[in-house]
Amino acid sequence: MSAKASVAIVGATGYTGRELLRLLAHHPSLELRHVMGSREGQTPEPPELPVDPSIEPLDLDRLRGVDAVFLCTPHGAAADLAAKILAAGSRVVDLSADFRLRDVDVYASTYGHAHPQPELLAEAVYGLTEHSRAAVAGARLVANPGCYPTSILLPLLPLLQAGLLDARAPIVADAKSGTSGAGKNPSPRTHFGAVHENFCAYAVGSHRHAPEIWQQAGTTRITFVPHLLPVFRGILATIYVQPNAGVDADAIRACLRETYAEEPFVEVYSRGMPELNRVQHTNRCDLAVAPAGAHVVVVAAIDNLVKGASGQALQNMNVMLGLPETAGLRP
Amino acid sequence: MSAKASVAIVGATGYTGRELLRLLAHHPSLELRHVMGSREGQTPEPPELPVDPSIEPLDLDRLRGVDAVFLCTPHGAAADLAAKILAAGSRVVDLSADFRLRDVDVYASTYGHAHPQPELLAEAVYGLTEHSRAAVAGARLVANPGCYPTSILLPLLPLLQAGLLDARAPIVADAKSGTSGAGKNPSPRTHFGAVHENFCAYAVGSHRHAPEIWQQAGTTRITFVPHLLPVFRGILATIYVQPNAGVDADAIRACLRETYAEEPFVEVYSRGMPELNRVQHTNRCDLAVAPAGAHVVVVAAIDNLVKGASGQALQNMNVMLGLPETAGLRP
Amino acid sequence: MSAKASVAIVGATGYTGRELLRLLAHHPSLELRHVMGSREGQTPEPPELPVDPSIEPLDLDRLRGVDAVFLCTPHGAAADLAAKILAAGSRVVDLSADFRLRDVDVYASTYGHAHPQPELLAEAVYGLTEHSRAAVAGARLVANPGCYPTSILLPLLPLLQAGLLDARAPIVADAKSGTSGAGKNPSPRTHFGAVHENFCAYAVGSHRHAPEIWQQAGTTRITFVPHLLPVFRGILATIYVQPNAGVDADAIRACLRETYAEEPFVEVYSRGMPELNRVQHTNRCDLAVAPAGAHVVVVAAIDNLVKGASGQALQNMNVMLGLPETAGLRP
Amino acid sequence: MSAKASVAIVGATGYTGRELLRLLAHHPSLELRHVMGSREGQTPEPPELPVDPSIEPLDLDRLRGVDAVFLCTPHGAAADLAAKILAAGSRVVDLSADFRLRDVDVYASTYGHAHPQPELLAEAVYGLTEHSRAAVAGARLVANPGCYPTSILLPLLPLLQAGLLDARAPIVADAKSGTSGAGKNPSPRTHFGAVHENFCAYAVGSHRHAPEIWQQAGTTRITFVPHLLPVFRGILATIYVQPNAGVDADAIRACLRETYAEEPFVEVYSRGMPELNRVQHTNRCDLAVAPAGAHVVVVAAIDNLVKGASGQALQNMNVMLGLPETAGLRP
Repeated sequence: MSAKASVAIVGATGYTGRELLRLLAHHPSLELRHVMGSREGQTPEPPELPVDPSIEPLDLDRLRGVDAVFLCTPHGAAADLAAKILAAGSRVVDLSADFRLRDVDVYASTYGHAHPQPELLAEAVYGLTEHSRAAVAGARLVANPGCYPTSILLPLLPLLQAGLLDARAPIVADAKSGTSGAGKNPSPRTHFGAVHENFCAYAVGSHRHAPEIWQQAGTTRITFVPHLLPVFRGILATIYVQPNAGVDADAIRACLRETYAEEPFVEVYSRGMPELNRVQHTNRCDLAVAPAGAHVVVVAAIDNLVKGASGQALQNMNVMLGLPETAGLRP
Repeated sequence: MSAKASVAIVGATGYTGRELLRLLAHHPSLELRHVMGSREGQTPEPPELPVDPSIEPLDLDRLRGVDAVFLCTPHGAAADLAAKILAAGSRVVDLSADFRLRDVDVYASTYGHAHPQPELLAEAVYGLTEHSRAAVAGARLVANPGCYPTSILLPLLPLLQAGLLDARAPIVADAKSGTSGAGKNPSPRTHFGAVHENFCAYAVGSHRHAPEIWQQAGTTRITFVPHLLPVFRGILATIYVQPNAGVDADAIRACLRETYAEEPFVEVYSRGMPELNRVQHTNRCDLAVAPAGAHVVVVAAIDNLVKGASGQALQNMNVMLGLPETAGLRP
Repeated sequence: MSAKASVAIVGATGYTGRELLRLLAHHPSLELRHVMGSREGQTPEPPELPVDPSIEPLDLDRLRGVDAVFLCTPHGAAADLAAKILAAGSRVVDLSADFRLRDVDVYASTYGHAHPQPELLAEAVYGLTEHSRAAVAGARLVANPGCYPTSILLPLLPLLQAGLLDARAPIVADAKSGTSGAGKNPSPRTHFGAVHENFCAYAVGSHRHAPEIWQQAGTTRITFVPHLLPVFRGILATIYVQPNAGVDADAIRACLRETYAEEPFVEVYSRGMPELNRVQHTNRCDLAVAPAGAHVVVVAAIDNLVKGASGQALQNMNVMLGLPETAGLRP
Repeated sequence: MSAKASVAIVGATGYTGRELLRLLAHHPSLELRHVMGSREGQTPEPPELPVDPSIEPLDLDRLRGVDAVFLCTPHGAAADLAAKILAAGSRVVDLSADFRLRDVDVYASTYGHAHPQPELLAEAVYGLTEHSRAAVAGARLVANPGCYPTSILLPLLPLLQAGLLDARAPIVADAKSGTSGAGKNPSPRTHFGAVHENFCAYAVGSHRHAPEIWQQAGTTRITFVPHLLPVFRGILATIYVQPNAGVDADAIRACLRETYAEEPFVEVYSRGMPELNRVQHTNRCDLAVAPAGAHVVVVAAIDNLVKGASGQALQNMNVMLGLPETAGLRP
């Protein structure tokens, strides 16, 4: 009987680290050897784990010999950690934004500082698993996609690649996210009194996920506006496209069904519409297509903490380590 | 000192009737003479009214002599009631959809039955107060606008009328509403377990408010998709327009500021974005403008029960009866 | 390799049936052979199950040969079904209230009709698993406890049995439940607008779970008042007891820790307080003890759909069929 | 016609200051002359006020000549401010806890520091208006009651004073509050992700409002346990009392009805139960009484920001300044 692969989580006190702890508790063939966090006194308190794992202080030496590491640290902190972990011989799936943008100038203007490890950028594989499986399989370093980009690229990439959309018409991606996307640190923006019985658009025209979407879509003609929902988990994106002449909603749907026919984590509805509560706690992206006026509307729903973060990270890790892609994940 | 004008509410057991009760409790110059409901046993129980008003059974004879009537009955039931009340000499503000569509064929295809009072359609004034004040002042019958159309027409009408928008480019109106818009009757759709920690699009490409929006905007190139928020009160509409060459977000904002400079109930932000909790319980429509990719984005927020229903109905009633337009309403 | 035991769900369209479907999807040694519902057209739509199971119409003949049946039908309907299923040779775990009360007079006064199968009452085992494991193991018919009684009996039974409480002092059990306890059928009481941003006590002095609590506790001196929380899942019960002289909070806690030391599904905190989000989606009952004035306060938290219904039903089924008690359940 | 009385708010950036701004906007005979806050850059942003009032930095000299001041500053900071304002000749209603406890030792052990202005304690009037109207009328300094004590003392004081309760039996006050009671500053405890779909007890046996309740009730045999609800506004207290022999729920209700018969802000139900949404945004305390086992249960509901804070402060201010007690307040 073969040994399990060994993994570690670095940065386990935030929402994505917690979610990974939950997922790994049910994984048949990964051994979680270390759970590290810089704030060692703070327990992660995952509500569903009766026994809190002990959080070790960050110590890269202790990671030596681990097959792969999930980096759940904040943007900016991950790049240097990744470089050291890779140098020590382990693989990395980075859940931060540090290796998502390939262009150092775009990175600098988006994140406000020079990229700390530009030489690693060329090697990093953007891990939208369904569209980069082969590259992930051979990767040492996977950049796990942002939550909004995941919900927008999965419906759009097949349509763009198949040439079904009017190349002159801009696309609208109106996306709505639960508050867990804003992280666990208290702020006026995520205070209960500011979210409950409220709703707003934010970062209109300036969200950091827009360059990531544009890079992967190969076009900047996607207008992306995020909104903050009074829910904890989930992103629903309503995407308005204008197809070429002769392409209708049925053709759009057929393209998506064909692309994702064999995919365990993408479901294209034949009727009905995705809702957040159909995908929460799953690694699925549910899609539906309907005509509306001059547009065809594609609605996508994911759990931002699972397919939009920790679930997709585990999916990538499974691929990277040669394990069954669905191991530990609920379709 | 002049006597107060006398009014009545017909259909006081739903959310819009309740909201009118609350508003009229603070009105300085309207006397609420009758509160009628077909389900007479059911008290309206407005949470903020310590003493429930007694709900009389519907009896049009008793309305004789009342200056004006608010009709808060369901769609389809209002038209015949309005005809009788007008014949008896009272004015009517109808909060249902019965007199909003001018074209009987569009009405029939939208609502599934022939219009019960087609001869009254020509007389009915569509009461988006800021844009039909003069007509409302002289009206016997005002069709109070739908909640979604109010949130979409107030930002769009000035831009369309000023010719600032590219006439070939479709407009996206992605709108999100609280559950009170779906009414007070229990249904699987409005069950707590179906709304809480959930979010969805609905009626994509088929909502009844689309023809109303198109009629008033004078164009069908507006794609309208409604969504159901896990909040009780409020609509936030995110509207994506493509201006003509040379027109930028500042010009769009300037047009809206100029149009609404003197309006007590429309506020155009110079910075920041509207949120539902800034307009809840008020009769305001808050607007903000920002550039985003190939679009200019206009965000509008209203309380669907106030500016989107009972508040605008009272605003129209004030205008119709020659009272100060803001009487009883909070800007 | 041994064959799996075969089970069926009768009444799969409500919340408890749905929850069982989710739990059985992960069970290693039960085969779900039939999923029956009287409203066959209605899909159960468990949000986490991508493929809806096909719901068969109720047909007891088709259940023949199944090892055991979960009855998730409404109160009153289960008793006759149980009698027939038992007669056909299968075992039954009944999630309704039909077999919880042993006294037919108490049943009749509590539920408003004579018990349909009084001769089965003596045989039915009240399945608060931790306190009736041996009886459940040999049972043909298990009455699964009510959600509120589970949250109140688990903390109280050890204290009563150990004689730690002042026998003259009444006990207060102030319990708060999420709305899923009220079921899936739409009603004015569970309408989003009636629950959201609201809270209330209900059935004060008259809830049907009080006689069940009194029967199992062996005393009527427990005052039980239920409340409706604006959450979907979970019950938190705050229980106020007056210990005998010389018995303090530490002694109360020690008694609970000793009773439940080996139990996989009951956790007694040494510090901190249970919260709903620590037990949601688990089969645990978390307990904590603290002194407060003249009382010792015991706080208990469960997920009403899991330990309070379907999880405990599966726990009982595991025991009844000789399987590991924790199979398919998350501690 | 007489001039309006002039008032000021010191500490206008928190929830209670905001609520006062809203209430004073509708007050017929108070002129709000100054709105001061130590964090002058922070706008109070009351959602219902379209125009933010300008917040001045704290400057006691500028308050000279103002008839009275609302102190909305945090506990500990108010006492010294009050001393100076009183010395300058203005009256004070203090919404903090600084003058609620009469015993300096209880204050020190409860709040962890010596009282800054012990000589003012004797003068301060505890402003539970319905029970201290005469003293408030002549006061220079009113200590506005805590939110929990308001919801517990209004139902209990009449029963204690009438001698209806068994003097040996402890009383349970199980109280549940919305998050606004925890203030506007972000914290892990009030993060949306920690409150939404959650519920917990906190400060069991150690909440600072317990000594305040005991002082005013004249007995420490009240066990008070607070809980945190996932709502923004409101407190519901479920109070379990044991009456003397011969005293039943009807007698308890009759005592409350008689006590509060003429009170505009206390309503004693003859049927039904209070809910938060019946009192939100009002200055009412709604009460209901029902028998339950060995207890009589009294349920009380208030809006913690109105009757539990700013509304009662305004009620006290009205009384102190000789204005109609209900001015600016909605019953």
